[in-house]
Amino acid sequence: MQLVGHGKREASVLQEAFQNIDGDMKSDIYGKGTVIEDFQEKIATLLGKESAVFFPSGTMAQQIALRIWCDEQGTKTVAYHPLSHLEINEEDGLKELHQIQTVLLADKNRVIELDDVLKMDKGIACLLLELPQREIGGQLPSFETLEQISSYCRENDIKLHLDGARLLEILPYYQKTAAEVSALFDSVYISMYKGLGGIAGAILAGDHDFTEKSKVWKRRYGGDLISLYPYIITADYYFEQRSQKIEQYFEDAKELARYFNSCHDVSTVPEIPVSNMFHVHFHQAKEQVVSVLIEVQRETGVGITGNLVEIDEDSCSVEVSLGDLYAEIPKEILRRTFELLDEKMMELSAEKD
Amino acid sequence: MQLVGHGKREASVLQEAFQNIDGDMKSDIYGKGTVIEDFQEKIATLLGKESAVFFPSGTMAQQIALRIWCDEQGTKTVAYHPLSHLEINEEDGLKELHQIQTVLLADKNRVIELDDVLKMDKGIACLLLELPQREIGGQLPSFETLEQISSYCRENDIKLHLDGARLLEILPYYQKTAAEVSALFDSVYISMYKGLGGIAGAILAGDHDFTEKSKVWKRRYGGDLISLYPYIITADYYFEQRSQKIEQYFEDAKELARYFNSCHDVSTVPEIPVSNMFHVHFHQAKEQVVSVLIEVQRETGVGITGNLVEIDEDSCSVEVSLGDLYAEIPKEILRRTFELLDEKMMELSAEKD
Repeated sequence: MQLVGHGKREASVLQEAFQNIDGDMKSDIYGKGTVIEDFQEKIATLLGKESAVFFPSGTMAQQIALRIWCDEQGTKTVAYHPLSHLEINEEDGLKELHQIQTVLLADKNRVIELDDVLKMDKGIACLLLELPQREIGGQLPSFETLEQISSYCRENDIKLHLDGARLLEILPYYQKTAAEVSALFDSVYISMYKGLGGIAGAILAGDHDFTEKSKVWKRRYGGDLISLYPYIITADYYFEQRSQKIEQYFEDAKELARYFNSCHDVSTVPEIPVSNMFHVHFHQAKEQVVSVLIEVQRETGVGITGNLVEIDEDSCSVEVSLGDLYAEIPKEILRRTFELLDEKMMELSAEKD
Repeated sequence: MQLVGHGKREASVLQEAFQNIDGDMKSDIYGKGTVIEDFQEKIATLLGKESAVFFPSGTMAQQIALRIWCDEQGTKTVAYHPLSHLEINEEDGLKELHQIQTVLLADKNRVIELDDVLKMDKGIACLLLELPQREIGGQLPSFETLEQISSYCRENDIKLHLDGARLLEILPYYQKTAAEVSALFDSVYISMYKGLGGIAGAILAGDHDFTEKSKVWKRRYGGDLISLYPYIITADYYFEQRSQKIEQYFEDAKELARYFNSCHDVSTVPEIPVSNMFHVHFHQAKEQVVSVLIEVQRETGVGITGNLVEIDEDSCSVEVSLGDLYAEIPKEILRRTFELLDEKMMELSAEKD
């Protein structure tokens, strides 16, 4: 049994989604055809945008969004959080492929607030907000802050782009629809494989002029594949299956965070999750925490996590995202798992003193 | 019945390839894992190169290859044929994303010959050769010419890149292995869905240093998807199924070209194919030729082609690529089909006079 996620990334994920697809369903061809156009329209409607384009990846979609806004604004500077995916995970694609300068807003340990935006340099073409801010446990500003930032950007002719890789996952916290959140932004990216658990792929949405330009760039990038349907069919399948369950993942995340926070030398960021994800910090050395987790799994059958990252010699952390698997664990076993984790973390602490 | 191709691009192409895949086969994760690494190694071996990288598309792979060579050579100019995919099908991605200048070699109606290369400007970082040259019916220079161009480039410190989208398809004509052809080039791209009939995807191969750099650019482009296995599994499946049949496609192409050339006002380019592809030129107005093809199909059940392109008011053409379907047509029906085509083209000609 695993606490987090939807299950392993393996071939059955694709096979299940294709099980009930007619063999004669026609492939999309270079962005055309029912299978891609229908899905794009469906997500455009969900997001309340004029149109949407399916991309192989969010990396590609977002660089392109920022490039389009830079071209439109006539200035090659954008602003985002210091731990934005574009800054830390893309080998500087935005800078290398587009010579776009970046301004990093806010301290890396907190989200961007209105004040950061008010103090931002003039001449920013586009501000990118990532909701939730993944690298700090999936934190969010208040919805009021978002509204204020959006108004400020509109008044000051700054485009506002949403890195909404996990957009659906934050709706239960904000108690808003995807369209209500998206309405604050000029363009929106949403991932097909985070909370939804598709195989890969992304949607970029905005007004018609914007998405048409994005298709030209998609071709330039080599992202306009002759066939994207393996990703589209699976995205649609898991969207149908999971978009209604995201509220449950959020509730589960809050429960699971309470369990972690009840354990000695364990805390979560944020303390109370605002989506289906959060970070768990163990205030003991990674090597020893790994041993504890292995023991707990041996005794309870529950795998808590396998991807601990060392912070320093006395602490480590892990990102967790709630999915289908949590609900499969009997409540009694869950309780026992965390009692045991608490005991064993306490023992570690006692050994150290 | 259809004369050309492997059949329709539809969901069954994927479903068939996944039919015998274990559901617990692990996905590749951002370019790592058995499924991607094994296939890359297999194709690297086929091509006789140190290593290979799987890309979502050839567009992405080739722009990256040229960028790497430009960086290495310290000059941002490359040379290729005027009808190269990069020049006419990629919305100028190479220029827009890399500011790479291009020198167009040879007249657009013929392949690049040694003389074109000898007269080439100095300061070219890389020469790209497309074999076969698709947009002119899939023509080829002689193998001796290739060897001479390769020697010249090595002596003059010009990198030589192979646009081998259809590399396997030319081996029967040259009577060479893929490795023997690839040995003349510093880097090689091969497509997974042309003659092989996969869903999408490409391989870029070269020495280790080159492919490692290409992985960094793949990430920058957003091509380093969390999972590429839907394309890899299908590529491998159809590679196994069809790589041995390509010689037959070549023989079929020569036979089919003879049939076309036996018809009034019909000719092929090249007259004798050098791969599984060629162009068919009808020397009558497109609208009338379409009517003829429909009548022939009604009477024989054989669909000759559906994608005629108007050249001028008196002629039209179509690209054909031989695949699995040709062998399914009984020889007698084939003969009858072209007798009828000949008759009807003759009638058209007579009406006009």
